[in-house]
Amino acid sequence: MADGTVKRPKFRGRLLMVGFGSIGQRVLPLLLRHIDIAPGQITIVNAHGDGGGTAQGFGVALQVCTITQDNLADVLAPLLSDGDFLINLSVDVSSTALMAWCRERGALYLDTCTEPWARRPADAQSAPDRCTNYARREAVLALRTPGRESPTAVSTHGANPGLVSHFVKQALLDVARATGTRPVAPVDREGWACLARDLGVRVIHIAERDTQASARHRGLGEFVNTWSVRGLVSEALQPAELGWGTHERHLPPDARRHADGCGAAIFLMRPGLATRVRSWTPLAGPQHGLLISHAEAISLADYLTLGCRQAPDYRPTVHYAYHPCDDAMLSLDDLAARSGRLQGCQRILGPEIDEGEDELGVLLMGHARNAYWYGSRLSIDQARECVPFNNATTLQVAASVMAGVVWAMTHPRRGVVEPEELPFDEVIAHCRPYLGQLYGKFTDWTPLRDRGALFDEVLDRTDP
Amino acid sequence: MADGTVKRPKFRGRLLMVGFGSIGQRVLPLLLRHIDIAPGQITIVNAHGDGGGTAQGFGVALQVCTITQDNLADVLAPLLSDGDFLINLSVDVSSTALMAWCRERGALYLDTCTEPWARRPADAQSAPDRCTNYARREAVLALRTPGRESPTAVSTHGANPGLVSHFVKQALLDVARATGTRPVAPVDREGWACLARDLGVRVIHIAERDTQASARHRGLGEFVNTWSVRGLVSEALQPAELGWGTHERHLPPDARRHADGCGAAIFLMRPGLATRVRSWTPLAGPQHGLLISHAEAISLADYLTLGCRQAPDYRPTVHYAYHPCDDAMLSLDDLAARSGRLQGCQRILGPEIDEGEDELGVLLMGHARNAYWYGSRLSIDQARECVPFNNATTLQVAASVMAGVVWAMTHPRRGVVEPEELPFDEVIAHCRPYLGQLYGKFTDWTPLRDRGALFDEVLDRTDP
Repeated sequence: MADGTVKRPKFRGRLLMVGFGSIGQRVLPLLLRHIDIAPGQITIVNAHGDGGGTAQGFGVALQVCTITQDNLADVLAPLLSDGDFLINLSVDVSSTALMAWCRERGALYLDTCTEPWARRPADAQSAPDRCTNYARREAVLALRTPGRESPTAVSTHGANPGLVSHFVKQALLDVARATGTRPVAPVDREGWACLARDLGVRVIHIAERDTQASARHRGLGEFVNTWSVRGLVSEALQPAELGWGTHERHLPPDARRHADGCGAAIFLMRPGLATRVRSWTPLAGPQHGLLISHAEAISLADYLTLGCRQAPDYRPTVHYAYHPCDDAMLSLDDLAARSGRLQGCQRILGPEIDEGEDELGVLLMGHARNAYWYGSRLSIDQARECVPFNNATTLQVAASVMAGVVWAMTHPRRGVVEPEELPFDEVIAHCRPYLGQLYGKFTDWTPLRDRGALFDEVLDRTDP
Repeated sequence: MADGTVKRPKFRGRLLMVGFGSIGQRVLPLLLRHIDIAPGQITIVNAHGDGGGTAQGFGVALQVCTITQDNLADVLAPLLSDGDFLINLSVDVSSTALMAWCRERGALYLDTCTEPWARRPADAQSAPDRCTNYARREAVLALRTPGRESPTAVSTHGANPGLVSHFVKQALLDVARATGTRPVAPVDREGWACLARDLGVRVIHIAERDTQASARHRGLGEFVNTWSVRGLVSEALQPAELGWGTHERHLPPDARRHADGCGAAIFLMRPGLATRVRSWTPLAGPQHGLLISHAEAISLADYLTLGCRQAPDYRPTVHYAYHPCDDAMLSLDDLAARSGRLQGCQRILGPEIDEGEDELGVLLMGHARNAYWYGSRLSIDQARECVPFNNATTLQVAASVMAGVVWAMTHPRRGVVEPEELPFDEVIAHCRPYLGQLYGKFTDWTPLRDRGALFDEVLDRTDP
């Protein structure tokens, strides 16, 4: 399927979208393009009426309703049953609750992050470990039913988490090819982990630079972003988390390990928005990214682990290094100064973007060719040309959601799966028309003294 | 003189400006407005030809020449002698060398920061303590000739350092008035220090927010600022420095004390651009500022010290907390990611600024009314209306330079003086027409748990 000719599946059930914000509104036209489905089969449940016009324009019903623990069953029962599909693109609606409900009813499921029920701000202080993506992932994995078939539930399949896990596999093959190491694609998890180990990959950054900008200035007290403000704020205030490589010698002073679970990741006693790391993308060159907690940092590190959990033989360090658009970078800094109290005004950059691109990829470090970045460089103009009303960031996410939904529809009995368990070449091929320039680049850039990611940060704060 | 009626002095000597960049070009029209001097009496020596048209427009001669240790005497000798005036607004020309030369020749002198000779980037690494403003200030103070009159040399008299030292005195009086403590202005250094102590002032921030912005986006690899890029970069790469208060209980782990000198300040083993501190201005509310090293952090802390140097009874913590314009904030972050290697493209925002203001003031904390900010809030429109071709930042500096020059001309035999030794009310009155709204505001804002400045930073990096 790597030639890009993914079939347009016919879907006969009902499709329910929970959440219809900046991503949901951009996913809908892609679903209609790549799935043989009538608008009348689709229903949207959203916490507010925004996007009502968009839904109407596509002939899709939108129901305004905030889903809570109490009304979950009542709201979903009339809308979903055996063979139907739920796409969860909401905030404050528990992914595991929706997943469990879908499994009971025989419905398929996909989300782009593991969302909890709405939290109180104090939760992070009282039990930071429970606010980690690590803990949320463990709760998702606990829904698996080993030895028993169950409806497919794709966890965390947006651009990142999601697409970038496929990029990592492509990048591993590219590095293998360039260094004369085994050029054949592995067929299972152990194969990929062995390849990463044999290539000498020590650190993987999800390295992203968003340069989209608008001529309309960000006001004081305004939070500006190229995608969901609540989504970004929510993850930026979680403790910073990273997959913790076996080569790392010194645990950062504010790091904590988890008492149970896969053991592949640690978290820091500080939020991602206050954790800068040195990273690199072809567009930006060296840059400071934010080490914002993301599911792929944990699932990729776990996927690429060799040996037993207690004393693994090999695991790379994996984390996000995100430079959001300049306005968002400054908005996050102000948010930190406000101790996490969200700015009163919020704006998602859409039509007013007048230039820029989103370069989203993976940076594999430590191998014989030093470092290799592979990913998507998508300009605002390319994005708008592909699918109207998108910006570069939303289209990268929407394309991957579409590809994940199509895969789930054609593989409906796989149970709970993470991105690493989907066929990387098929998903990339399916998304390719929406990713602008999809390319790789070797670089001689290294963090100072070739240390691991956290020590970059420490070094960064000493005199240059 | 506090009513603003400062006389326009007649100056009969020659006036030499060394450096004619973003500040020099804005100072010139103010000098001609506030001093009875003919353009023919003024000469400019600049390292490049920029601003030649501006000089010509004012009928002032501009000589292109890079002053070095080797040619200093040759360049200055024909241009300066007894009773003349040198204004140093250059980079890479040693302030102490110019000061010493002027003293020998009987010429007056003023600068806005203590500049060293051009450095190699490696200098900061080899001897960080010598790159501090503390060390540079000690070298300036060593030029004093106790018991012997000498020509006035005003050290570090721009907006900050400079004007803000006068703001601190006004703010102390305002707080005294508001809390019913001695409402009469002290007459000497000890008097001011006692007032600060009696009011309970523990921490003084130079708290600035620059919101000026242009619709023209900052490019990748471009450094954008509202004043000299080289000036900002130079100080942002110096070790962070702060006047160290007697109430502080814990020295930060990367702090260093100085072996000799006044002992009023410490420095950190990291550059100012990588040192964020919580602060507050009326315009911004809570904000993260950069703890960039500045002369006033040391001179103010020293000036307000009571008791002996070895074991002082009272001293406030004093430091800069600077949020430059958004473009500069991002440029500095990229500069840090580039390990201090300056971006190839540089741009000073001038006519393309389409909105914003510069709010520059002092924030006095710890007294009975909690915290009090006093300073200048100047919009881009107000600045342009006052003096064409200015922005808010350059005009605040230029006004203070002008006021310092006028004071020196009318007090020509005071030797080496720091801003704290000039009459605060006279200088403020002289600058007032150029400062927009000059006002004070009490606030109940505190850094978390009311700790000193550095601990704010530490707290800031734990989970909010």
